Amino acid sequence: MSEQFPPVAMTRLATQEADFNQHLDTLLAWEGVSDSTVQQRVHDILAAVKEHGDSAVIEATNRFDRLDVTSIDQLMLSAERLQQAYEGLPVVQREALTQAAERIRVYHERQKPTSWQYEEADGTVLGQKVTPLDRAGIYVPGGKAAYPSSVLMNAIPAHVAGVREIVMVVPTPDGILNELVLAAAHLAGVDHVFTIGGAQAVAALAYGTQTVPRVDKVVGPGNIYVATAKRAVFGQVGIDMIAGPSEILVVSDGKTNSDWLAMDLFSQAEHDEDAQAILVSWDAAHLDAVAESIERLLPTMEREAIIRESLARRGALIHCNDPDEALMLINRIAPEHLELSVEAPESWLSEVRHAGAIFMGRYTAEALGDYCAGPNHVLPTSGTTRFSSPLGVYDFQKRSSIIHCSAAGASELGKLASTLARGESLTAHARSAEYRIRK
Amino acid sequence: MSEQFPPVAMTRLATQEADFNQHLDTLLAWEGVSDSTVQQRVHDILAAVKEHGDSAVIEATNRFDRLDVTSIDQLMLSAERLQQAYEGLPVVQREALTQAAERIRVYHERQKPTSWQYEEADGTVLGQKVTPLDRAGIYVPGGKAAYPSSVLMNAIPAHVAGVREIVMVVPTPDGILNELVLAAAHLAGVDHVFTIGGAQAVAALAYGTQTVPRVDKVVGPGNIYVATAKRAVFGQVGIDMIAGPSEILVVSDGKTNSDWLAMDLFSQAEHDEDAQAILVSWDAAHLDAVAESIERLLPTMEREAIIRESLARRGALIHCNDPDEALMLINRIAPEHLELSVEAPESWLSEVRHAGAIFMGRYTAEALGDYCAGPNHVLPTSGTTRFSSPLGVYDFQKRSSIIHCSAAGASELGKLASTLARGESLTAHARSAEYRIRK
Repeated sequence: MSEQFPPVAMTRLATQEADFNQHLDTLLAWEGVSDSTVQQRVHDILAAVKEHGDSAVIEATNRFDRLDVTSIDQLMLSAERLQQAYEGLPVVQREALTQAAERIRVYHERQKPTSWQYEEADGTVLGQKVTPLDRAGIYVPGGKAAYPSSVLMNAIPAHVAGVREIVMVVPTPDGILNELVLAAAHLAGVDHVFTIGGAQAVAALAYGTQTVPRVDKVVGPGNIYVATAKRAVFGQVGIDMIAGPSEILVVSDGKTNSDWLAMDLFSQAEHDEDAQAILVSWDAAHLDAVAESIERLLPTMEREAIIRESLARRGALIHCNDPDEALMLINRIAPEHLELSVEAPESWLSEVRHAGAIFMGRYTAEALGDYCAGPNHVLPTSGTTRFSSPLGVYDFQKRSSIIHCSAAGASELGKLASTLARGESLTAHARSAEYRIRK
Repeated sequence: MSEQFPPVAMTRLATQEADFNQHLDTLLAWEGVSDSTVQQRVHDILAAVKEHGDSAVIEATNRFDRLDVTSIDQLMLSAERLQQAYEGLPVVQREALTQAAERIRVYHERQKPTSWQYEEADGTVLGQKVTPLDRAGIYVPGGKAAYPSSVLMNAIPAHVAGVREIVMVVPTPDGILNELVLAAAHLAGVDHVFTIGGAQAVAALAYGTQTVPRVDKVVGPGNIYVATAKRAVFGQVGIDMIAGPSEILVVSDGKTNSDWLAMDLFSQAEHDEDAQAILVSWDAAHLDAVAESIERLLPTMEREAIIRESLARRGALIHCNDPDEALMLINRIAPEHLELSVEAPESWLSEVRHAGAIFMGRYTAEALGDYCAGPNHVLPTSGTTRFSSPLGVYDFQKRSSIIHCSAAGASELGKLASTLARGESLTAHARSAEYRIRK
């Protein structure tokens, strides 16, 4: 595409260096917090939508997306419109989207938790009941980052979970609709689409308006305004996570084609300038080979400028001593995507504690998982795999505890509860339990 | 206890009334947001602990808990100290606590999700791997609301999940330790205890200090400072939920002893003045009988003043037309605790969509579940059962997706991914996938 770029100044680190830990910390650091200006703007939009409903949504949408609509009806797409988008796709795209949706559905069907209960000797029954959410809201970014694959990844788990009503929002800056996105919504079982975005869309979903139904949970990625709005409405509704930039950590044993690995790193880096692509290997010559592949392949990339900036700012090639040290780095970085481009990757699995998705072996490029392998591509970022999971069916369901005491069971438990409640000076608790003790 | 109180002015509502919906909305409304003063104070404490570590924790603890410690060692309790507390308990309390812990453990063992995988015809393997958190932080309130049962309910699921290290924090205002709380920590498998609280404890757990290890998730209830601090560190660490005041909804068919029901309502109301206790029945005479029981029993209660204020401010007796309407109210209120004090409660279960814990039948007082039935007493409040679950083993584990493509599988998926990636103009994704297509 371009030939005037200097070589990419990609960070090279080695675990043997004295200041390695400090360099790694700096490389991984990411502060995604919004400043007070963003906070205030989001606060104002949330308050306006909460108070005025549709009219505030229309006002904000006209302002931010450069539209000129006068009625909320102009911001709604019918199920027929979604189907029409699907049917209008070129056959190859339609079939690829349909196959991907089917594979994603099959995988997520395996995630469905089931209700369970057990009975004790005295007839007391204990259990847990799993119920889908009534209504889920899916936020889909518009403009340049409108990805039909994200529609599938967000909506299909909700559909598999049994959510009664799936509401999608997607902004259409300057009125431009993405037919692939609408087709994906049709395939994924979305019930309503509103062409709105930003904090105003999050507010409409969280509070409800005259037209937009209030949902129980808002999921999906978005810019800093969307992320700030999601954090603000958390508690009023559920949210999935606050996503940071996407990342990949590739561990190579030196035997994977260096061009393949360069392209795997590019596939992460091309998302945006903040994306992070890191390669770890204990084979120094191999790291050099990948660096050479990077330089050679870069000028052939359509998104060369973005890839260059991402690799220069946040990418790294890390030399470690051995596989054990690579494992230590995996668990320290806790990456969103982990490619184990090694012989016998199964043998690594029990030692990997923190990773959103693990792509095993030389053939499993992250891109396969991004689109169609089946598992979800919405994953925790910025080290949050330490405590978070991929988006899944479980995000669209919740549990209720079941306790059904027999008369005999209540009598025994009543004695226990009475003792413990009196130890906490909660005597109404104690007396409520004591009423159930057999005289 | 006291005889000078006037009758409790408990709200009476009937679904037949024209303005019922509005009255119910007012009754249920709860704004738990912290004001800007609290926000600023919490922000300052978080920043101080992040920057100065132990010394900031010591300073804040001395200030808020009226202590005079000079070293963080004075704010640490050893495993031996916990065991000593356990062994020092009166036998009846020790045995009750041990039995409760055992029942909670048995129930939570059933919650453990398992890793799974499946192989496709071409040898591609897909799955999901479940891993415990490395380190969990348990916040236990101090002072008057220090409950050993909460220690069991927060720490046992973490222990069952396989968390490597469980760190508990509990403030000790004026230096007063609660032996029951320490004994519960011993029983529940807590590894370290720090006698710190407030936003400074949340900060220490979220960021780590020279002495307090950084955890991956902070769980447990607390006051407005703790809740505000948890919301602020969310993302840096996981959190369980932002809890509001505790609530119960009792549905009675009119055949449960009215004294029992009055006491069940009291057991909720005695927690604090913001707690909410609501009784629904289609038997108007029964509601009158419960109102009479309330008046008669109230003067016998140790926490009479709190119960009176809670019932007057947030309690209600609601008359509805029939069981169907009661079900409608259950799903609208989405209560933390639901008592189905009715004949054949099993027949109601499939229609209950939103409730944290369901106490079935006349014998199952909420108090039994609060202490020892087995299920968790940490439950979503303020209508958040629409999208949240009881605290459970699943809160202390996370999942990683597994994708292991065979050469044949990668070739087929590569074609699909290539088509979809080109549809999104992500050509590095496409080319990364295409490398894996067999020529």
